[in-house]
Amino acid sequence: MTVINEKINIQTKGFTDIINITDDIIAIVDKHKIENGHVLIYVPGSTASITTVEYEPGLLKDLPEAFEKFAPMEHTYHHDETWHDGNGYAHVRASMVGNSESFPVISKELYLGTWQQIILIDFDNKPRTRSVIVQIIY
Amino acid sequence: MTVINEKINIQTKGFTDIINITDDIIAIVDKHKIENGHVLIYVPGSTASITTVEYEPGLLKDLPEAFEKFAPMEHTYHHDETWHDGNGYAHVRASMVGNSESFPVISKELYLGTWQQIILIDFDNKPRTRSVIVQIIY
Amino acid sequence: MTVINEKINIQTKGFTDIINITDDIIAIVDKHKIENGHVLIYVPGSTASITTVEYEPGLLKDLPEAFEKFAPMEHTYHHDETWHDGNGYAHVRASMVGNSESFPVISKELYLGTWQQIILIDFDNKPRTRSVIVQIIY
Repeated sequence: MTVINEKINIQTKGFTDIINITDDIIAIVDKHKIENGHVLIYVPGSTASITTVEYEPGLLKDLPEAFEKFAPMEHTYHHDETWHDGNGYAHVRASMVGNSESFPVISKELYLGTWQQIILIDFDNKPRTRSVIVQIIY
Repeated sequence: MTVINEKINIQTKGFTDIINITDDIIAIVDKHKIENGHVLIYVPGSTASITTVEYEPGLLKDLPEAFEKFAPMEHTYHHDETWHDGNGYAHVRASMVGNSESFPVISKELYLGTWQQIILIDFDNKPRTRSVIVQIIY
Repeated sequence: MTVINEKINIQTKGFTDIINITDDIIAIVDKHKIENGHVLIYVPGSTASITTVEYEPGLLKDLPEAFEKFAPMEHTYHHDETWHDGNGYAHVRASMVGNSESFPVISKELYLGTWQQIILIDFDNKPRTRSVIVQIIY
């Protein structure tokens, strides 16, 4: 078996910044000529997540609004009372969505729906440089 | 190493239709006589998800009600203002729950709890034919 | 390829009890001297989840409060009308967060952020003994 580990470095604006990383991942799958395999997309950290969405301007507003309802930025979090870094909302959102998503490669194709893009969401309350790990097993 | 890719085609009714796919997956694990391995269950698309639940009539009402509170159907989404397909709620729900779930096979058994079933949820606002990918690595 | 299956047994208090299992998992990765590989952390059952969080006292209050807003304990669930076990809220929360999370091991290191711990959340309304499966593929 082969395990491939690749890293993508991404500059974010924070504040539930949603970044389309689909093309980066397809490029890695293509570069290694993966025929069939399992692709783990993973972001380390406690204020960022990986998921998918139809990457279009409407949903780029809808998704942050839904998170705002679920874990509002202006709410007082116990985390902030202790650490005063003001990103309690970001931790709660990231724990809910999760740090990774896995995808199959089948016959050389990363198996996505037509309107489905892989995204990094940076919930933190400041710009960050994030490392997204792409681990392929085949 | 061996990578097995299987596909299950499922007719849904949409509107947060919850379908128990556990038996299909167990049948695939059994057919290939998997002793120990990693099973990825994955649905492509941006309005459907894979997760687990105790598949009983009460929770089949509770789960849609919880999603309705989190991302209501009747809310006006920016996605719908642009595309007028009325399924903004479905995109938001699917991004939150995710497209996949992974399970271990241990000593030939798909390792589930007694009251835990694997489900496909189709959030879209119309009936769909969904392809669920079962990728086994062993 | 090698598949390693290990099990960690954990006594919980239930009621959205959040338990830091990071050290147990690092110990397993170290014991098997994994160089590069894929680690699936999975809890069977329909009222428990695996995710990550910065494990500090503030967030250990914030996370249950967010879940309480999303799926309150005191709400009447259809599940409870049928089964009278009073844990409908726990099922809804677990379906949302999911039973597993996957992590890469790269150059012998379980690739976590500085402030990111792996947690088991037991949502059930009573103490439970949970088995967490650690499946490593390398």
